[in-house]
Amino acid sequence: MLKVNEYFDGHVKSIGFENKGPVSMGVMEVGEYTFGTAAPERMTVVKGELTVKLPGRIEWETYGAGDSFEVPGESSFQVQITQTSAYLCEYL
Amino acid sequence: MLKVNEYFDGHVKSIGFENKGPVSMGVMEVGEYTFGTAAPERMTVVKGELTVKLPGRIEWETYGAGDSFEVPGESSFQVQITQTSAYLCEYL
Repeated sequence: MLKVNEYFDGHVKSIGFENKGPVSMGVMEVGEYTFGTAAPERMTVVKGELTVKLPGRIEWETYGAGDSFEVPGESSFQVQITQTSAYLCEYL
Repeated sequence: MLKVNEYFDGHVKSIGFENKGPVSMGVMEVGEYTFGTAAPERMTVVKGELTVKLPGRIEWETYGAGDSFEVPGESSFQVQITQTSAYLCEYL
């Protein structure tokens, strides 16, 4: 069953599915967002770029298509989007 | 504006957006599908795998995560899905 999720008034949308564990694939419009995490996750940029501030870090880092970063569980991370971008999120 | 599209009774869902041209990102559940194309497009597998029969070809070819294939415009292609898989479609 493919589950469509909407966040931040529809500026972020994702499709949740199962493939060797829970996965979601989504698109973020231009803006700045904070995401909370339950399980740890790996985010992979598929199109565009995500500028990210990970928990406990001071600097922001930009990830382009093909780049991945991991976020610990029970935490949160900030994202700045300057071009509508797509990502894959794999729950670890 | 992020546009959610559903095909084949919801077994294929996608999110359409703009990034240097029209793009869509989607997920296909297990099954066999035929997609028509208007503009030529590049399909990139993001998660799982797509087994594809391109127009004019006899054999089926399997593409895994990271692989891409192109489909001419005004044509169609067949896809067999054996594990729920995700793709990026860039219209050329």
